[in-house]
Amino acid sequence: MARDFAARFRVAPGKRVQLAKHDPADASAFPDRQAAEAQSRDDAAAINEWQDKLYAEGRRALLVVLQGADTAGKDGTIRHVFNDTGPLGVTVTSFRRPSEEELAHDFLWRAHLACPRRGFIGIFNRSHYEDVLVGRVRKLAPADAIEARYEQINAFEKTLAENGTTILKFMLHISRKEQGERLQDRLDQPKSRWKFNPGDLEDRKLWDAYQAAYEVMLHRCSTPWAPWHVVPADRKWARNAAVAAIVRETLEAMNPDYPRPDWNPKDFKVD
Amino acid sequence: MARDFAARFRVAPGKRVQLAKHDPADASAFPDRQAAEAQSRDDAAAINEWQDKLYAEGRRALLVVLQGADTAGKDGTIRHVFNDTGPLGVTVTSFRRPSEEELAHDFLWRAHLACPRRGFIGIFNRSHYEDVLVGRVRKLAPADAIEARYEQINAFEKTLAENGTTILKFMLHISRKEQGERLQDRLDQPKSRWKFNPGDLEDRKLWDAYQAAYEVMLHRCSTPWAPWHVVPADRKWARNAAVAAIVRETLEAMNPDYPRPDWNPKDFKVD
Repeated sequence: MARDFAARFRVAPGKRVQLAKHDPADASAFPDRQAAEAQSRDDAAAINEWQDKLYAEGRRALLVVLQGADTAGKDGTIRHVFNDTGPLGVTVTSFRRPSEEELAHDFLWRAHLACPRRGFIGIFNRSHYEDVLVGRVRKLAPADAIEARYEQINAFEKTLAENGTTILKFMLHISRKEQGERLQDRLDQPKSRWKFNPGDLEDRKLWDAYQAAYEVMLHRCSTPWAPWHVVPADRKWARNAAVAAIVRETLEAMNPDYPRPDWNPKDFKVD
Repeated sequence: MARDFAARFRVAPGKRVQLAKHDPADASAFPDRQAAEAQSRDDAAAINEWQDKLYAEGRRALLVVLQGADTAGKDGTIRHVFNDTGPLGVTVTSFRRPSEEELAHDFLWRAHLACPRRGFIGIFNRSHYEDVLVGRVRKLAPADAIEARYEQINAFEKTLAENGTTILKFMLHISRKEQGERLQDRLDQPKSRWKFNPGDLEDRKLWDAYQAAYEVMLHRCSTPWAPWHVVPADRKWARNAAVAAIVRETLEAMNPDYPRPDWNPKDFKVD
């Protein structure tokens, strides 16, 4: 395939990002919705095939980091992109409010613990980036400690990359207006009311501060070894298509293969 | 649904099992293969719906334990039964040869660590039962220590059950002849050769001792709170249909539901 969707969404290392200039409803990478949906399905099936080879090979891992405001669709993306792959060989870690034990360690400790083993795809639903997002916006640590975290994250991810983990990071970029509609939907529909967290409205009041924190994160932590991608997320189908395409391309570039054992099958007799 | 597939495969508590009397090719529960395959697909979709409610409810968990000889189809069962459910809210733990750290703890330690959190389905691909299977056959611990494990397992599982984890255990019952064909296939096909482990032939030589160990395990550890099911596994489609049906029935009986928040949605304004 001569595709390069990653290049359309990737944040070049060192580049300053102004999220206001990224239209959350942009779907120009996918001119036709039905074609995009068909492509997503095809990509999801291909990701499943690649994951089988990755698992068989057992030498490398893929780490997919998902960040985004509430309702941006982190769960939905995982469902659409990785459901063909199933739970075997795929781990999903949802980073919630840290436990007492987690808080007793440095902020990267729980992230490291959750990294995928060789052969696996690991998905972070939120991640160590919360510590430069909510951490920064709500001043959960001194400013200089927060400031130091960007380079600490880069060093951590470089170590992972140099030890066989390919890293893909996606910022699901939703508009304030679309978030408002989705939150209202959660309130209105009894079946989804459980997803509504009154605290989400508190974060929504801090919208601009969060957007600024995302911009710093994208600027400081999109690296050659762990690039960020800004994915417009107001249209779910375009969001899914972008993430699926980039994950597939990345696995293709990794090109894992079934290992060739160093023994001769003829030497074994099954009696 | 007025089905009760579990009853067809369940080992009654205290019952002695003679595996030689269980035909591994038996498919009498599913007279028509195509109908069974359609039912499996339908069950997998229903399991996905139930899992969403289980997750939303967030109060209980389901633990599915899979045991069986090499090639019995533990991985394949997980793929078929849980692929609709995807990796979100489902964890799979493959129990391999214990690490030094695991061996430094009691045999249930690593199993406890891998138990599903509330709201999740946890799948054990092999499990703590290895310690009364390979442990018994290869005498990896003194006989009285092995002997004590059956009651220790029952007590452990009872604690899990009393704390909100429903437990389903499946012994995938394959014939020695079918295993021979599957092992030979792994040797013959370059794409699956990596799955062949020369050590599997060593276990195969101990076939009768393993069958005897399974019989003790089924007799001693099928409890009202954590029943064993013997699933004929020579025919993959019948194996998948049995496990899918029983998992679905169990989730239906658990009947998780979307929680009703104790706040009034009208009290919140999304601005």
